[in-house]
Amino acid sequence: MKAKIHVYLKPGVLDPQGAAVAGALHTMGYEEVTAARQGKLIELDLSGEDADAAKSRVDEMCQKLLANPVIESYSIEMA
Amino acid sequence: MKAKIHVYLKPGVLDPQGAAVAGALHTMGYEEVTAARQGKLIELDLSGEDADAAKSRVDEMCQKLLANPVIESYSIEMA
Repeated sequence: MKAKIHVYLKPGVLDPQGAAVAGALHTMGYEEVTAARQGKLIELDLSGEDADAAKSRVDEMCQKLLANPVIESYSIEMA
Repeated sequence: MKAKIHVYLKPGVLDPQGAAVAGALHTMGYEEVTAARQGKLIELDLSGEDADAAKSRVDEMCQKLLANPVIESYSIEMA
């Protein structure tokens, strides 16, 4: 079983990486880019068969290690 | 228009961030995690109406700036 976790900075939290990406794209002539945000993508391989139980364990992992719930939000996709 | 870009290290490329995540999860007792890989998630806001043209421009941005095609693969999702 695989879990894909998307971790984003919450709206309103300063995102210097995203700002740097947007600035660089502008400099390169991609004027259509109005904003950029950068997040993390974590893919876990999991043993076990029960997808619901696995998802709630992954949610726990996000709370404890993978995301900082103060400034980041996350979504989990099981596959 | 929004473009979501997922950037992954290609299979076989050493992923120390992913290995650190897997190691930390094991230490915390999440024994079901057999592997972890970490990538980047970039979200761009784009002006303009033509989704196909925008996607090919975003592909160009990935080749030139957002991904390193030697060691990274990427996928683009328009929304």
